Amino acid sequence: MLNRKVILAIADGLGDRPHPLLHDKTPLEYAATPHLDLMASQGITGMMDLIGTGIPVGTDMGHLILFGYQPHHYPGRGPIEALGMGMDIKPGDVVLRCNFATVDEHGIVIDRRAGRIRERTDEIAAAVNGMEIDGIQIYFKAATEHRAVLILRGDGLSDKVSDSDPKAPNDGVPYHEVEPLDGSEESLRTASIINLFLGRVHQILLKHPVNIERQEQGKSPANFILTRGAGQMVELEPIVNELHIKGSCIAGESTVLGVAQLAGFKPITDSRMTANIDTNIELKAEWALKEIAENDMVYVHMKAPDIKGHDNEPFEKAKAIELFDRMVGYILDSLPDDTYLALAADHSTPCEVGEHTGDSVPILIYGPSIRRDRVQRYNELDCVYGALGRLSGNEFVRTLHGLMGIVKKQGN
Amino acid sequence: MLNRKVILAIADGLGDRPHPLLHDKTPLEYAATPHLDLMASQGITGMMDLIGTGIPVGTDMGHLILFGYQPHHYPGRGPIEALGMGMDIKPGDVVLRCNFATVDEHGIVIDRRAGRIRERTDEIAAAVNGMEIDGIQIYFKAATEHRAVLILRGDGLSDKVSDSDPKAPNDGVPYHEVEPLDGSEESLRTASIINLFLGRVHQILLKHPVNIERQEQGKSPANFILTRGAGQMVELEPIVNELHIKGSCIAGESTVLGVAQLAGFKPITDSRMTANIDTNIELKAEWALKEIAENDMVYVHMKAPDIKGHDNEPFEKAKAIELFDRMVGYILDSLPDDTYLALAADHSTPCEVGEHTGDSVPILIYGPSIRRDRVQRYNELDCVYGALGRLSGNEFVRTLHGLMGIVKKQGN
Repeated sequence: MLNRKVILAIADGLGDRPHPLLHDKTPLEYAATPHLDLMASQGITGMMDLIGTGIPVGTDMGHLILFGYQPHHYPGRGPIEALGMGMDIKPGDVVLRCNFATVDEHGIVIDRRAGRIRERTDEIAAAVNGMEIDGIQIYFKAATEHRAVLILRGDGLSDKVSDSDPKAPNDGVPYHEVEPLDGSEESLRTASIINLFLGRVHQILLKHPVNIERQEQGKSPANFILTRGAGQMVELEPIVNELHIKGSCIAGESTVLGVAQLAGFKPITDSRMTANIDTNIELKAEWALKEIAENDMVYVHMKAPDIKGHDNEPFEKAKAIELFDRMVGYILDSLPDDTYLALAADHSTPCEVGEHTGDSVPILIYGPSIRRDRVQRYNELDCVYGALGRLSGNEFVRTLHGLMGIVKKQGN
Repeated sequence: MLNRKVILAIADGLGDRPHPLLHDKTPLEYAATPHLDLMASQGITGMMDLIGTGIPVGTDMGHLILFGYQPHHYPGRGPIEALGMGMDIKPGDVVLRCNFATVDEHGIVIDRRAGRIRERTDEIAAAVNGMEIDGIQIYFKAATEHRAVLILRGDGLSDKVSDSDPKAPNDGVPYHEVEPLDGSEESLRTASIINLFLGRVHQILLKHPVNIERQEQGKSPANFILTRGAGQMVELEPIVNELHIKGSCIAGESTVLGVAQLAGFKPITDSRMTANIDTNIELKAEWALKEIAENDMVYVHMKAPDIKGHDNEPFEKAKAIELFDRMVGYILDSLPDDTYLALAADHSTPCEVGEHTGDSVPILIYGPSIRRDRVQRYNELDCVYGALGRLSGNEFVRTLHGLMGIVKKQGN
């Protein structure tokens, strides 16, 4: 059996629709993409629906599938975010996404983002991290800007609890008590622990030196934590163990790095790999080539096309795609003979919609002895005529695993 | 998020096979269809198998899927027919399709259709409607020609009962006692109630003035009711509630209107909308445009292609398709900017077969920012090369819902 390797380059939110500003081309059709098109003319192409036709997926779900899981393995956003921040999550942990917020003495939310606090949130988080309540260990860590993650660890927990975040479009409403969402003892206990924790946090943060300084400067103090989206980490075998492979993932975005961690792919990041158009593509390409020497499968991710789709910036999206093309070009130049280079996206983010949609995305596989089809360009319209046809995300990933020679033969 | 609308125009039984009388073209290839072809050249196309390759479906099942249900939601033909006649059906009701028939004094069926009776069946039905037997309410209503519908309402009923209709190709055999089809108490009870009902009906109808008059005129009296196809109405949430949309359906055929009713789409009909080639297409188009102003999704149906397929009339079928093209053209002329116009069929009815077959049918979506493929004509052979590929009925409908922006995102 041949044992071959795969580098999968993922352009986040790549898929789009014809745009009037681009003479009714999609950003991918409009962009100059000599490397992607070279690969199309020498590779095999097709279209992919991550879960199924018409179904939009989040970046986390899209990558969960691209890393080799089934959609029903989705563990919830909280655990993925915590993993992406490098926090250690164990099966059974309840993970909540949080905001630092400002409340007044009556519990009214004055500012859901504590004046969009960015500085010294690590210090504030450290002051409330590591508590134990009723036998439950509580971990708390600051994330980007006003965001943070809360982890409850111990027996008898449940993620069936409501949000303390009132999520009102405007401030001035009270924060919510956390309530159990089903009749179980576990959810009752979890809600009670979170409420106790939030009460203690408020007392501690009122007197925290960072907050005292902020008030002196006329800034909103981060004197409360709003929680939302509780998720309980499932028992999920890293997919690399099931596949008996070794892999890594190069990305600037914590969500993607979180899914990689979950799947057992070593997360590789660097502050120069931003999750935007200023990302360092040479560095990403270098890492991809370095990692594939040591691994069986390497994912290399670029966020910028998605950002520009959300912002309805078709020209900017085309530019982001040209960057992606250059990154792929660097990898192509030094691609080892035993390695396939594949292209995909986790979902479409059409500019005109500004949101993820269920439109299918183009896929491509280039490399040793691949069956070449007649498609000459990598985009949403040409790849329709590719020899891969229209695949689900799971089918596409299994095609890659099949080419690597790691899919178990059925029968004898 | 964009919120867009859909008008879906359905040509019943549209799909066909090459026919020698049409120089080996299908009726759809043979017909002059400028509007359908214009839409093909500016839209996205593909092929659809309602349930799966090779599986023929009835008009009721085909529409159930086109309205957004899964095949296993099918509640049986009886309930759909009763809904289409405007009867009020509740979950648990057992519904049977019936014929007025003529039997002799020994219970031998002399005429399965009571001389194809058409007149004054309402009066006959009224004479036996509204009985109560063993706590079960019994409703009976005349339908078109010699047909009628019987509804049993109450606790402890089952649709696992046999037909009283002997369905013999020739008359002269006795009608059947209705028997339980499983060992349950419910089916035993239901069979017994139907048998009691049929006995009473016979006594009443023997003396009914309409029948006495028919006998004087030498016509077969409608002195018995043959029952078949018992179906128990399931608890089925209207799909519009699940999708959070408002919709309507314009059709001349009661089966289609029945499915629309079930799905929560307002049924709109008019005696000028016949279920044949003399249907008023301008009226249908007008209604479709009027309704889409108030609704999110409008279905507009045309029966004639199916009728001509059943009759093995390829030229007539091509003519019916040209009518469909004109109806679509009227809608196209005034299609709002935010609205997709889609084309589909519920199944193939090839002339050479004269019956529904599992041959796939062409599909098309035209409208705002759609990804245009290279297909220039709407028919069974060109649409094979369309960018939608080959979809199941559920996949096609979800594609429409996806474009409307009403499919829930998976993950975050």
